[in-house]
Amino acid sequence: MVNMMKAVYCDRGPISLRIDYPQPTVDDGDALVRVILAGVCATDLEMMAGYGPDFSGVLGHEFVGIVEAAPGHEQWVGRRVVGEINIGCGECELCRRGLSKHCRNRTTVGISDKDGVFADHISLPVANLHHVPDDVSDEQAVFTEPLAAALQVLEQISVRPTTAAAVVGDGRLGLLIAQVLAQTGCRLTVFGRHEQNLKLLSHITAEVIQVGTSAGPAGQFADCFDIVVEATGDETGFDTARNIVRPGGVIVLKSTFAGPMAEFDSSSLVVDEVSIVGSRCGPFEPALRMLESGQVRVEEMIHARYSLDDAVQALDLASQKGVLKVLIQP
Amino acid sequence: MVNMMKAVYCDRGPISLRIDYPQPTVDDGDALVRVILAGVCATDLEMMAGYGPDFSGVLGHEFVGIVEAAPGHEQWVGRRVVGEINIGCGECELCRRGLSKHCRNRTTVGISDKDGVFADHISLPVANLHHVPDDVSDEQAVFTEPLAAALQVLEQISVRPTTAAAVVGDGRLGLLIAQVLAQTGCRLTVFGRHEQNLKLLSHITAEVIQVGTSAGPAGQFADCFDIVVEATGDETGFDTARNIVRPGGVIVLKSTFAGPMAEFDSSSLVVDEVSIVGSRCGPFEPALRMLESGQVRVEEMIHARYSLDDAVQALDLASQKGVLKVLIQP
Repeated sequence: MVNMMKAVYCDRGPISLRIDYPQPTVDDGDALVRVILAGVCATDLEMMAGYGPDFSGVLGHEFVGIVEAAPGHEQWVGRRVVGEINIGCGECELCRRGLSKHCRNRTTVGISDKDGVFADHISLPVANLHHVPDDVSDEQAVFTEPLAAALQVLEQISVRPTTAAAVVGDGRLGLLIAQVLAQTGCRLTVFGRHEQNLKLLSHITAEVIQVGTSAGPAGQFADCFDIVVEATGDETGFDTARNIVRPGGVIVLKSTFAGPMAEFDSSSLVVDEVSIVGSRCGPFEPALRMLESGQVRVEEMIHARYSLDDAVQALDLASQKGVLKVLIQP
Repeated sequence: MVNMMKAVYCDRGPISLRIDYPQPTVDDGDALVRVILAGVCATDLEMMAGYGPDFSGVLGHEFVGIVEAAPGHEQWVGRRVVGEINIGCGECELCRRGLSKHCRNRTTVGISDKDGVFADHISLPVANLHHVPDDVSDEQAVFTEPLAAALQVLEQISVRPTTAAAVVGDGRLGLLIAQVLAQTGCRLTVFGRHEQNLKLLSHITAEVIQVGTSAGPAGQFADCFDIVVEATGDETGFDTARNIVRPGGVIVLKSTFAGPMAEFDSSSLVVDEVSIVGSRCGPFEPALRMLESGQVRVEEMIHARYSLDDAVQALDLASQKGVLKVLIQP
């Protein structure tokens, strides 16, 4: 007998709430996790807009939950956990080289060939789980995955105390990246469009600049920054980043979206010796440490909380401009 | 009285030999250099094709010469020299931060607002000059500037003994980059179209793969390389590099050309966490050390040598596919 559950099903874009979706079964090495809270990410919204067009399954990849079963790994049962979202094949050359998160045969929770977390239950390999410290609340823990993505910037590039850094974008991810960069003592500037979002950065040392709805930062910032992190979530950010990064500087791209190819002037990139760094998922353990210490504040970023029954409305709200984290509670 | 000289004049593209071009005058801090040998670079050919469309002046930037005058710096007179090509304003924020080679008000020898080296004489700030060791021949020294550009790759990224590196392109710069990368002990693969050029790499430890005139490296190399240096000189190389670089790997772009904007799939760059690094001029002193030690072989790369009188023919020959270094001798 297969138990049934509620789940938000994404059918190559359009979503619907299903009340009789089969609960996942678990094999040796997998854990069955009851979802406590899930978070809506820009990627979920892009999936609904056609990014990753081949995905049919349960949406969502940010969560905190409780392990209910873990055949062969019973010590995990009852633990509160968060989970990494990429599941490599374990066999290919990339997996053998420790690059399983980039495995070409991987599945990705709620994004590619693997049911996601907008549901009562999920299954995930035990190897993907991280135990949540008692001092981290559910509302904090649900930010572990996006905070890890923010920390990935520091895994990839060196941000020093004397670095002039900019974050372009004041959405969910932009605010996390700004807080993470501020930890380094760098000279930080954050460009955003939403006054109420930028206000959430009042506890960090950063110059905060509100820009118009269509214009990017003004020309006065040309060549100003050693490092620019582009987190606008759409295709508008790259040109802005290219304009304000100094020669020899680094642009970090964080946005994945359904949209047109970006154009770049290859020769000018060479002449200015600018680097572009694609940046995606990051390390969970330091994210949990930062949540535990309170170094990064996330609870103010919660805009609304919906029951799983109202998940479709939750996703609709999350898609509105300037709305920060929307949580879904099974 | 102004002395006259011969020079190859580029008039926003089209070139001609002038026999009565005014010899440069020199102020305090400048040196008057008699050109011994000059080298033709792909950038010169791109200038003739419309790259840097605002340039009217003497073409050429690779040279070795003898200092004939240096007001205020007489110790330089009689020295054999090579010279860096970027001349910053010395006043702006970029110059103050040590980024004068990227100064927005800079002039660049033979490329932007500064007469170049396809002439009997040039002027250059003494600060740009480097003394050529006696053990380095003129024919070697004329490769200092492009070899420095090849070394710039190692200034920007870390190539380790275990790195799997690829060079795409077997032209003038590609062969220098291949030799430089081979010094690191990395596992090197060179993709090129010209059998006779690839043969010049027989003294280094590298896998050399000849590809067709239109096809890039075959799909068998997908995801294979930690680092790919794109040195094809045109817009064809980027897609190839993108295909063969592994997730999390680095593409170094060396080509500047007159051509269309490149397109890239921004989201796939993020998901694969690939980095793109623009790379241009490099350090002269290590280039001179490598020429002196013989670590890098350049003389086999000389395809032909023309007198300045025949410089137009020299440039025509250099523009043919597969032709390596063409030298011009005043």
